[in-house]
Amino acid sequence: MVVGSVVQPLSEEQAWELLGTRQLGRIATSVADQPEIFPINYYAADGKITFRTAAGTKLSEIAVNNRIAFETDETDDVGGWSVIVKGHARILVSTHDVEAADELPLHSWVPTLKFDYVEITVDEISARRFTFGPEPDRYGNG
Amino acid sequence: MVVGSVVQPLSEEQAWELLGTRQLGRIATSVADQPEIFPINYYAADGKITFRTAAGTKLSEIAVNNRIAFETDETDDVGGWSVIVKGHARILVSTHDVEAADELPLHSWVPTLKFDYVEITVDEISARRFTFGPEPDRYGNG
Repeated sequence: MVVGSVVQPLSEEQAWELLGTRQLGRIATSVADQPEIFPINYYAADGKITFRTAAGTKLSEIAVNNRIAFETDETDDVGGWSVIVKGHARILVSTHDVEAADELPLHSWVPTLKFDYVEITVDEISARRFTFGPEPDRYGNG
Repeated sequence: MVVGSVVQPLSEEQAWELLGTRQLGRIATSVADQPEIFPINYYAADGKITFRTAAGTKLSEIAVNNRIAFETDETDDVGGWSVIVKGHARILVSTHDVEAADELPLHSWVPTLKFDYVEITVDEISARRFTFGPEPDRYGNG
């Protein structure tokens, strides 16, 4: 049986390029080893990922443990790609930082007057592209 | 300024329905409060989410801490929805469980002869639907 599926690791540069093509990602946080996951609209550039959030769970988790994981992907019928990031999150508080973030093309999923910017410093980034295809036979009978 | 965006919490039943319309989700794990996130192809039914995985990071994390979070979503230009789950993961080992999982319409992102099934027991599920629209003015000038 021919296995048509291909998984191709991509370079860091390609990972950043793909990151820039999407706006919807997910952030994973953890407090006391209870993982949480949230969809976010993000903007990625210059080694940082920025998103907006209303005050609430996401922010309180980050205040306790600022280590996060982030993922975005795109798929269609024949394959797709995924980018995974590990990093540290911080809430932007200085006027300078907030004004700079105000210039980003960035929207929140939850419209609110009271929001904060969260900036992720990317420590690790990886990406892979894959093509769906015939599966190997579990029992080796293919 | 009229704020056109709407966030609508959905029922648990609606959350399960939406879960059934997608195959691509993401699982978040945590060991020593370092969150990890992975894309998975899943199948959801009967209070369980099942996915296949090659031996590796995902499995080793689950063996250390079986608490997971899971997310799937769908968006277009005008809005979308997101389903978030918290649960416990276990690797299926009994012949009965594995044979039952073999019947599920389930594929792995990474084709491999050596894979395991992971089953998530859903402890909490929530969903919300949202419509993108004009943003409130941060400074209340709208």
